[in-house]
Amino acid sequence: MNLTTVKNALETILNSSQEFGIEEVDFIKSLGRVLKEDVIADCDLPPFNRVSMDGIAIAEAAFNSGQRTFKIEGVQAAGSPQLTLKNNNNCLEAMTGAMLPDGCDVVIQYELLTIEHGEATVNLETVRNFQNIHKKGLDRSKGAVLIKKNTLISSAEIGVLATVGKSKVKVAKQPKVMIVSTGNELVEVDQIPEKHQIRRSNVYTLVSLLERLHIKAETAHILDDKQVLETKIEAFLNEYDVLIFSGAVSKGKFDFIPEVLDDLGVEKLFHKVQQRPGKPFWFGKKICAERSRSSKTVFAFPGNPVSTFVNCLKYFYPWYQKSVGLNFENTQQAILSEDFYFKPNLTYFLQVKLSQHEGKIYATPSAGKGSGDLANLVDADAFLELPDDRTDFAKGEVFPVILYR
Amino acid sequence: MNLTTVKNALETILNSSQEFGIEEVDFIKSLGRVLKEDVIADCDLPPFNRVSMDGIAIAEAAFNSGQRTFKIEGVQAAGSPQLTLKNNNNCLEAMTGAMLPDGCDVVIQYELLTIEHGEATVNLETVRNFQNIHKKGLDRSKGAVLIKKNTLISSAEIGVLATVGKSKVKVAKQPKVMIVSTGNELVEVDQIPEKHQIRRSNVYTLVSLLERLHIKAETAHILDDKQVLETKIEAFLNEYDVLIFSGAVSKGKFDFIPEVLDDLGVEKLFHKVQQRPGKPFWFGKKICAERSRSSKTVFAFPGNPVSTFVNCLKYFYPWYQKSVGLNFENTQQAILSEDFYFKPNLTYFLQVKLSQHEGKIYATPSAGKGSGDLANLVDADAFLELPDDRTDFAKGEVFPVILYR
Repeated sequence: MNLTTVKNALETILNSSQEFGIEEVDFIKSLGRVLKEDVIADCDLPPFNRVSMDGIAIAEAAFNSGQRTFKIEGVQAAGSPQLTLKNNNNCLEAMTGAMLPDGCDVVIQYELLTIEHGEATVNLETVRNFQNIHKKGLDRSKGAVLIKKNTLISSAEIGVLATVGKSKVKVAKQPKVMIVSTGNELVEVDQIPEKHQIRRSNVYTLVSLLERLHIKAETAHILDDKQVLETKIEAFLNEYDVLIFSGAVSKGKFDFIPEVLDDLGVEKLFHKVQQRPGKPFWFGKKICAERSRSSKTVFAFPGNPVSTFVNCLKYFYPWYQKSVGLNFENTQQAILSEDFYFKPNLTYFLQVKLSQHEGKIYATPSAGKGSGDLANLVDADAFLELPDDRTDFAKGEVFPVILYR
Repeated sequence: MNLTTVKNALETILNSSQEFGIEEVDFIKSLGRVLKEDVIADCDLPPFNRVSMDGIAIAEAAFNSGQRTFKIEGVQAAGSPQLTLKNNNNCLEAMTGAMLPDGCDVVIQYELLTIEHGEATVNLETVRNFQNIHKKGLDRSKGAVLIKKNTLISSAEIGVLATVGKSKVKVAKQPKVMIVSTGNELVEVDQIPEKHQIRRSNVYTLVSLLERLHIKAETAHILDDKQVLETKIEAFLNEYDVLIFSGAVSKGKFDFIPEVLDDLGVEKLFHKVQQRPGKPFWFGKKICAERSRSSKTVFAFPGNPVSTFVNCLKYFYPWYQKSVGLNFENTQQAILSEDFYFKPNLTYFLQVKLSQHEGKIYATPSAGKGSGDLANLVDADAFLELPDDRTDFAKGEVFPVILYR
């Protein structure tokens, strides 16, 4: 049996990544999407000398000449045009968020003042020029790049987009994904299975794994009939960028997927990976001649629930991340919390429960009953990736980890 | 000035948590919600002795009596009713996912067979009873609790819900949240600010921070007019469970929020917290007499963007998590990667950039230009919480960390 290593499988998949173009969306709907333009400061930040404490604004020179009591000329409110201090020996009350009044260069907060009869008296020995003033352009200058292209948009970026007026923002288009289950044993979630049947679950797991990437995938079910499979898959290849299958890729008499994909001109890039779970994983690509830069990508995952689950995380996620311009290298690691033994010459994705202590991440095995044991995924929260060239893994060793919560 | 410690503020907030009831949603829409019922196995998992490799099913007794070639009686497909082996010296081809045929207790995979003229010959010395068979009930027994009440639903749980036929699932209702900005200096995102104005950004940051919790919040803007504030806030208190404000809680002449809330019968539980950023944070609650168990919660955050941002993460998040039944204790920590000095007697939420190495999480300060420096949030990804009783923080020390990416 000719198995592809996990490393080679991932490399092949990453080499098959592709862009899906750019679209413009309302900034408030861009959370979790990937920015496809540099976001520039449209003015200095802050855009004016901004009062940062409620109090009075004065001229430092007056203070330094010994004056401590200042007649209040008026109030500089936030949101009002800039006032001018008429008499340098006076003051203006000034509110947080307001423009610093013209003629002033110091703000003294109310906590340090006594106000009586329209006069503010300052209880201070010294002041510092521009104290309590957030200086124009201090944070960033007009024209500065605030968010770089290819940033994954979080709440922090949403605030910055609002600040600079990017009510519409260019983001990576998401691939159109169809998730297909096969297998005559499957019935719908709201049905009672016959004795020999089970409910359809992998497609829904996949839908929700893709929802985490903000991809709205569609789903279909096809019975194990080669002719029907060909007709439907051909139509899906025309309409979607990516097809994800779950099941029918192994050696069974009704495992038609590899054959049908071959018939439909999808080039197999590998079939069977040196891993557990998920050995029968098939991956391929169809180059569409009519539109030269367009191609269709097919992930045909094995049907066991844990296989489908971890393969989606290990292979589809980085493929997607590279496709939209994100950093796709998983640098997360965890420390094995007890000795573990695994004999087969396969990369093993060990189900683990993570815990943190003193800034360190520990992984405790929670291995379950094999690739069919879906329920065990509930009791774990990550997969520790144990390399294929060893059988003994010692407590305290560090391995890559794939989180799913 | 009477400041509440961060610890006391959080304690007060957690004591004010409340349930918002339960609703039933389609299981596929429950990702990120909190389960409000135990999910039970409606049958054994797997529900039958399930073939787990494609090959032939035989009777172990025949093999043990020395037989190595078996006549093929037929095919047991996945999704077909269980077949019975008619002659114990024969075999049935059996596919992954199929029921184990009656009369068989061993499955041998195709890789170890030669099939010719309707007979399968086995190239093996020994077999193991039930090899390549996923035994009925091995993973979980009928009636077992597969997912406990109060679990945050991830993709793993979605798969299990599908498997046991929970097409509808009980989840915690989300609070109805209104996010209100005040301040005459604010204009809409798609407008060009006048010289003394800035764009409205905090409400959008908050909307997206709540979106991460799967809460769809609404937003409003009210000008700094006490009468208008009273009228509108009164209406919001009637309609929403939670009001979140951003700004107008400090000492400014137009900082009407604490006063207005007091007028409207919202009890102040604290005002001003011993922290930076976010010192003027105001928190209160209104008990609604008409419906004895109903109360309204008000988070009035300071208006500086970084203050609003970190206060939402530090206080609103755990309040929400406790309210819906989740574990609300933040146990995440990180290792300070360089010495840091901070003098004021305040808990400091230091902006940091996280990195991982060998299973350890390091935090590198990325302090920015203060609480107004929204753009700096883009360059960091977490806040390290430095305690208020010290000024020197050494490289290698471990502190709690709040992630926002």
